[in-house]
Amino acid sequence: MFLKKVKLLKNHFAQEEVQDSFHQAIRPYILTGQLFGIFPLSGVFDKDPNRIRLVWPTVRVALDLIVLGAGIANTIAECMRLRMVGVNAKNINGLIFFVDGCIINVLFLLMATKWNRVAVKWDSVDRIFLTESYRIESKWTLKRRLWTATALLLGLACCEHLLATINNLNDQWHEIEHCGWKENITDTFRHFSLRKFSNMYSIVPYSTVSAVFFSYVSFALTLYWNYLDVFIILISIAIATRFDQINTHLRTLAGGGVLIPNEPFWIRVRTHYVSLCELLDEVDQAVAWIVLISCATNLYFICLQILNVSQKLRYPMNDVYYWFSLLFLMGRTATLFLCAAHIHEAAKRPLDIVAKIPNNGWSVELDRFSSQLKSETVALSGMGFFHITRQLLFSMAGTIVTYELVMLKFDKESEGKGYIRPCSFFDIEKKWLT
Amino acid sequence: MFLKKVKLLKNHFAQEEVQDSFHQAIRPYILTGQLFGIFPLSGVFDKDPNRIRLVWPTVRVALDLIVLGAGIANTIAECMRLRMVGVNAKNINGLIFFVDGCIINVLFLLMATKWNRVAVKWDSVDRIFLTESYRIESKWTLKRRLWTATALLLGLACCEHLLATINNLNDQWHEIEHCGWKENITDTFRHFSLRKFSNMYSIVPYSTVSAVFFSYVSFALTLYWNYLDVFIILISIAIATRFDQINTHLRTLAGGGVLIPNEPFWIRVRTHYVSLCELLDEVDQAVAWIVLISCATNLYFICLQILNVSQKLRYPMNDVYYWFSLLFLMGRTATLFLCAAHIHEAAKRPLDIVAKIPNNGWSVELDRFSSQLKSETVALSGMGFFHITRQLLFSMAGTIVTYELVMLKFDKESEGKGYIRPCSFFDIEKKWLT
Amino acid sequence: MFLKKVKLLKNHFAQEEVQDSFHQAIRPYILTGQLFGIFPLSGVFDKDPNRIRLVWPTVRVALDLIVLGAGIANTIAECMRLRMVGVNAKNINGLIFFVDGCIINVLFLLMATKWNRVAVKWDSVDRIFLTESYRIESKWTLKRRLWTATALLLGLACCEHLLATINNLNDQWHEIEHCGWKENITDTFRHFSLRKFSNMYSIVPYSTVSAVFFSYVSFALTLYWNYLDVFIILISIAIATRFDQINTHLRTLAGGGVLIPNEPFWIRVRTHYVSLCELLDEVDQAVAWIVLISCATNLYFICLQILNVSQKLRYPMNDVYYWFSLLFLMGRTATLFLCAAHIHEAAKRPLDIVAKIPNNGWSVELDRFSSQLKSETVALSGMGFFHITRQLLFSMAGTIVTYELVMLKFDKESEGKGYIRPCSFFDIEKKWLT
Amino acid sequence: MFLKKVKLLKNHFAQEEVQDSFHQAIRPYILTGQLFGIFPLSGVFDKDPNRIRLVWPTVRVALDLIVLGAGIANTIAECMRLRMVGVNAKNINGLIFFVDGCIINVLFLLMATKWNRVAVKWDSVDRIFLTESYRIESKWTLKRRLWTATALLLGLACCEHLLATINNLNDQWHEIEHCGWKENITDTFRHFSLRKFSNMYSIVPYSTVSAVFFSYVSFALTLYWNYLDVFIILISIAIATRFDQINTHLRTLAGGGVLIPNEPFWIRVRTHYVSLCELLDEVDQAVAWIVLISCATNLYFICLQILNVSQKLRYPMNDVYYWFSLLFLMGRTATLFLCAAHIHEAAKRPLDIVAKIPNNGWSVELDRFSSQLKSETVALSGMGFFHITRQLLFSMAGTIVTYELVMLKFDKESEGKGYIRPCSFFDIEKKWLT
Repeated sequence: MFLKKVKLLKNHFAQEEVQDSFHQAIRPYILTGQLFGIFPLSGVFDKDPNRIRLVWPTVRVALDLIVLGAGIANTIAECMRLRMVGVNAKNINGLIFFVDGCIINVLFLLMATKWNRVAVKWDSVDRIFLTESYRIESKWTLKRRLWTATALLLGLACCEHLLATINNLNDQWHEIEHCGWKENITDTFRHFSLRKFSNMYSIVPYSTVSAVFFSYVSFALTLYWNYLDVFIILISIAIATRFDQINTHLRTLAGGGVLIPNEPFWIRVRTHYVSLCELLDEVDQAVAWIVLISCATNLYFICLQILNVSQKLRYPMNDVYYWFSLLFLMGRTATLFLCAAHIHEAAKRPLDIVAKIPNNGWSVELDRFSSQLKSETVALSGMGFFHITRQLLFSMAGTIVTYELVMLKFDKESEGKGYIRPCSFFDIEKKWLT
Repeated sequence: MFLKKVKLLKNHFAQEEVQDSFHQAIRPYILTGQLFGIFPLSGVFDKDPNRIRLVWPTVRVALDLIVLGAGIANTIAECMRLRMVGVNAKNINGLIFFVDGCIINVLFLLMATKWNRVAVKWDSVDRIFLTESYRIESKWTLKRRLWTATALLLGLACCEHLLATINNLNDQWHEIEHCGWKENITDTFRHFSLRKFSNMYSIVPYSTVSAVFFSYVSFALTLYWNYLDVFIILISIAIATRFDQINTHLRTLAGGGVLIPNEPFWIRVRTHYVSLCELLDEVDQAVAWIVLISCATNLYFICLQILNVSQKLRYPMNDVYYWFSLLFLMGRTATLFLCAAHIHEAAKRPLDIVAKIPNNGWSVELDRFSSQLKSETVALSGMGFFHITRQLLFSMAGTIVTYELVMLKFDKESEGKGYIRPCSFFDIEKKWLT
Repeated sequence: MFLKKVKLLKNHFAQEEVQDSFHQAIRPYILTGQLFGIFPLSGVFDKDPNRIRLVWPTVRVALDLIVLGAGIANTIAECMRLRMVGVNAKNINGLIFFVDGCIINVLFLLMATKWNRVAVKWDSVDRIFLTESYRIESKWTLKRRLWTATALLLGLACCEHLLATINNLNDQWHEIEHCGWKENITDTFRHFSLRKFSNMYSIVPYSTVSAVFFSYVSFALTLYWNYLDVFIILISIAIATRFDQINTHLRTLAGGGVLIPNEPFWIRVRTHYVSLCELLDEVDQAVAWIVLISCATNLYFICLQILNVSQKLRYPMNDVYYWFSLLFLMGRTATLFLCAAHIHEAAKRPLDIVAKIPNNGWSVELDRFSSQLKSETVALSGMGFFHITRQLLFSMAGTIVTYELVMLKFDKESEGKGYIRPCSFFDIEKKWLT
Repeated sequence: MFLKKVKLLKNHFAQEEVQDSFHQAIRPYILTGQLFGIFPLSGVFDKDPNRIRLVWPTVRVALDLIVLGAGIANTIAECMRLRMVGVNAKNINGLIFFVDGCIINVLFLLMATKWNRVAVKWDSVDRIFLTESYRIESKWTLKRRLWTATALLLGLACCEHLLATINNLNDQWHEIEHCGWKENITDTFRHFSLRKFSNMYSIVPYSTVSAVFFSYVSFALTLYWNYLDVFIILISIAIATRFDQINTHLRTLAGGGVLIPNEPFWIRVRTHYVSLCELLDEVDQAVAWIVLISCATNLYFICLQILNVSQKLRYPMNDVYYWFSLLFLMGRTATLFLCAAHIHEAAKRPLDIVAKIPNNGWSVELDRFSSQLKSETVALSGMGFFHITRQLLFSMAGTIVTYELVMLKFDKESEGKGYIRPCSFFDIEKKWLT
């Protein structure tokens, strides 16, 4: 009897599902990730946010663990290859790329275990901001914003991966020509795979299936590297949108200075503001490690690509790829910072309206609201080490210069190490010639 | 009938035109710019600020686009020349100079499309501060301040350009003597133009008209580089003057501690203060990119000129020019920062007077005013990345040291590149000898 | 009569000794230190905090002074050895280690003279937070926390010292083999001691007793280096725990927004909060120099170990030791900063609860509490030069990079200096062969 | 009649002269300066602060201008010498020393013209803090503090100059011996003077009088360099003492939490606090340039002396001098910063007492006082570019490291320049042998 009632209530609840909520909007992004084995949440398509949780014995989790396993295997194989070849400032980036991918996968897995709480909280906050009074008038609904950002950024990421692959093929093609291997190679795909995944194929024997699988893993790891940043961007857009809704609401009702809202109005607004801050706090704790890793990764790869483009490259294709990659990286990082910083700006903006409330509309509640707005730093933070505001982006730029100097120094000192003689088969011992 | 009324009203409105408004004072500056094809606003001389807007099919815009086109052509030609000669830390500055000029032109064009809104807002704020109660007593009216600053800075800029030209002529003269070309050269202007605009004349054939036009464009681009900084300086002086008017007003009426103004007085003052802050916000958004580009340009050229003077130069004239240029650049940058920082200082100063209001004159309005003064950072900001205060100038000085180190490193590494053998005709293939 | 009463009162007082106070919990740590001649406080086991003071003519102080004397002797001997051998970036670390040990010992001695005041104040504050209303519900009592931290950190420190010793033995063993000294050495302990304490044995003759004593002193000095950091960690945990108790108390009684506490409740809480801040202030002044020395020491040794691991090492054992040492150092420093920063976070947290108090529960007292929370920086500070917050840790990371650059420069310039020919007896003139 | 009255009033006023005022305490310091031609204020010994002003046609001013003239002559002569010899990182310090001395002299002359206003304001503030209620109980009156600081710092400065002279003599002595000039030199003083003031004696002929005068000028310039720093230290101590008097007053009357002062008490205290802040503001504007020059000078000379001690020096005497000089410089700079930062600390301290006022003693006035204390940065500032607080000292330390790197680079690049062959007479053409 009771159970039935609960079920009925749930159905009822489900029917009432609010439109344009964050979890509705982020569904395709999570699904895309899960195809490549990351963030294996169950219940993403369920209307009840309580169902969004990590269920261990599912296909999603299995796929996640398989890719993770392959990533770890790659890491180990790359370690062995580097030990054989020698380390320099440039060839270490392969290792860092694999380690990074594995860490990101694990972090999202860990976050998935705690995501349920965030989802429930987010749903409850969304319900506030999807009521009539906070209605977004523009056609840029939250869903539209998130989908556009996702499509754009993942599209560019695919371009980057495609260019990287073409660049790699181009290099190999020149090598084949230069070494006169042309007549020896019968299976081009096999040759390219053997060279590209040389770290793995110095351990396991070649097979077409494994080559396809490794390509899949390689693509998945590249995706993770973007997934992280895009995830933070989406979260930032979603939360900043809510703050902007408060601002629009205030501007409509109190901005002109004609209508003077009464105290209950301010109590309501402040309560909603505090709820949003609590949500941000919750999210901030959940994504803390992800933000840190994202910043470190971006910093490293930007420095690396600057190093690459600052040197004479062999083929025009290299120039095209490295410049595109550098610009894409800088653009993505800047987007991330600007989106995250927008939370901070949107959360400060009510101050302008509060300053214009005339004296006869002033109340204790407004005083509290105003002093809260002035003193709190409402922003995403990397575990409390820094707050992501526009001013951080400015000091980041300075940091990149310093780290670039260190990297140039390391590059100079490691010169001559990690050099592979052209036309050598160091890794696969002529295996592919048989 | 109705139209007539409107016209009458307009005339009436025009007769009432306030004296010493910002747009009145900045007219000659905008006109000067338009002679060299920048900031092609129409209606600058109209008394109605609503008329100040960008009208596309006008001579001003046409001139703007012509200079911009010439700038882009120069950029491309310079790119080609550098590709032929090789890049080093010093000869890249020509390219940066052209790119910079084009960017500045485009930014001012974009700003012109949005300037109408700023002009209207500024006019409405000016009307407040040109009433009796805020009258400036000193003979340094806003107009006088802006005109003096314009004259001084543009004058020095002309000196700098003149010195640059003389320096260039001097170098060429020594080259002519050294290479024994004296008897070969019949048309001195032609020779100098061919050498100076060698990037263009390796593409187009020489003609006296084109040489004159290139000189005009070259002067225009140099001007842009100053136009930008002077524009920010003028804006800063204008806004800071308004804040100072509030301070004078407060000091007169409430500074002595004898007269205790009543609450309506404070309501009025705070409302004016908030209006001024809103204007600053509007202006800040309009000039955001300009401020950023200005800072980056100044930083780069200061580092470059330090690099130039820190090395042994060939002729005394070089020493004179590079030292003058460096000092002028540093002076201009310091002036820009100090003027912009003065907004921040002037906006904070009411605090001192508020602190001295005795207890019996205290009111809720004063409490709000005081807490607003304490918490807000009222200053020009480069897109929110930094606020221009005196403390920023201090940290800029540190940044220059770091960047100078990077530049010295780059200069050392690019040694030997971009070297042109004396007496060579690399660019124009003895064309001028025919 | 009166004296008797006082005694009775004291006994009574003693019986009432509060459980889980800071001084009760830190006893074993202080005792451990005293075994190695540091922080020679008397009355540590007395229940009356007034008895905790430095008594000069005690065994503890004597031991302290003996170790200090030996430390100074080592410093002088090391100075002489370096003058003979020459200084480079790596062998100077022995001297710095000895100087550091002596400074730490003296600082703790000085602090001991002023500790009584801190102890009494701490006891009075502890009495507030050990009453019923602030009871810690979890099984992680303060004692347990401090003991766990102590055990863990001192355990790892012992491992580090053990590894250092093994590493040293290993190096010497290889040297013996390489130089063919094997048959010459009869007393292995003697040989190792002579080599390890070569600076001392170039002054005093060898004896087994002195070798044991030097080993003891060497261990003591290594301990000091950890003692310092662990001490700050324990203090930080203890104070942060108290702030957390306030937070728990507030969350229980006012967090839900259902119960609205009255003004006396807030008066009480704010008074306790202010007392805790006063305690922190007192402690901060007492440990100011210790915090400074700790930061400087950690910075230096992290830079040194990065320098060590960044170079090719001779034996695998070296790799093991230097990597372990570096990771341990970084872990310990990070722990120190995070623990100290936790004070700051815990002290700010009441703001979240205060923000949620509804309007009808607002009072002047709450206003004062809230504005106090917003404006004060409640944190450990290195003599006021910096506040230890999470953001400091972030900027520390940047500083390490800069200092590492300086160290690498110094290492390069001092190359070739301080080099000891293998199989040489530079320090003891074949003394051990006789 | 009227004049007589004024005179009577003045006498009366004079009799009332407050004890332990700043201008009374600083008299001997100003007098010492005037003996060496700096800060030529008249009326220093007058009891009426209105009389403290710069009177142009006085002996003090004449002396000032004579020393300044000699300084400028030295600067020019040094410029010419450097042009002849070549510039490197070390021999440029002579030029900087002379330029610095002249700038300091001019700055103090300019400050003297505006000092009257400061003196009058200071006297009026001193009168508040020398009343009964603010009485300093300790025997460390302001006069005693300032005199002790003056004696200590000027004493050490004399030591430094003495050591510099001995060091110079020692170098010359070794040169004489090495070059076998011993028998040629008849007049030792003449020889030393000719060598030491070689820049001047390459222009003017030698005479004993001029040698004595140059020694006097040389000493005067060294003094200026200290005068500047000591002046800021004295000012800082004086103002910080006044803030400390407010703190003592508050602690006595309101610190225990037993007595609860009424609102008029707080009005009085806040008024005095605001007056003191106004004085600080006035002083800050007067000494702005001096603070800037002091920081720059100290930064440069610390970097220079670090450069000197970091290299192999020829004689032990050199080591003694350079280490003493470096330590003295660092000590003096640290003292300056700590004294100036103490103003900031003392001005913030009332917050602790205000936090402990119970709720029933709270008033609007206290609220204003508390919010003023929280928001204002009361500190000496270098023209608003930075506030001198303890945290600045911390970041200064980082800056020195960066600048040292730049200096080392410059030292390396200028190697070989400015080298003078031993036993050469480059500057005086054997003049002294005749």
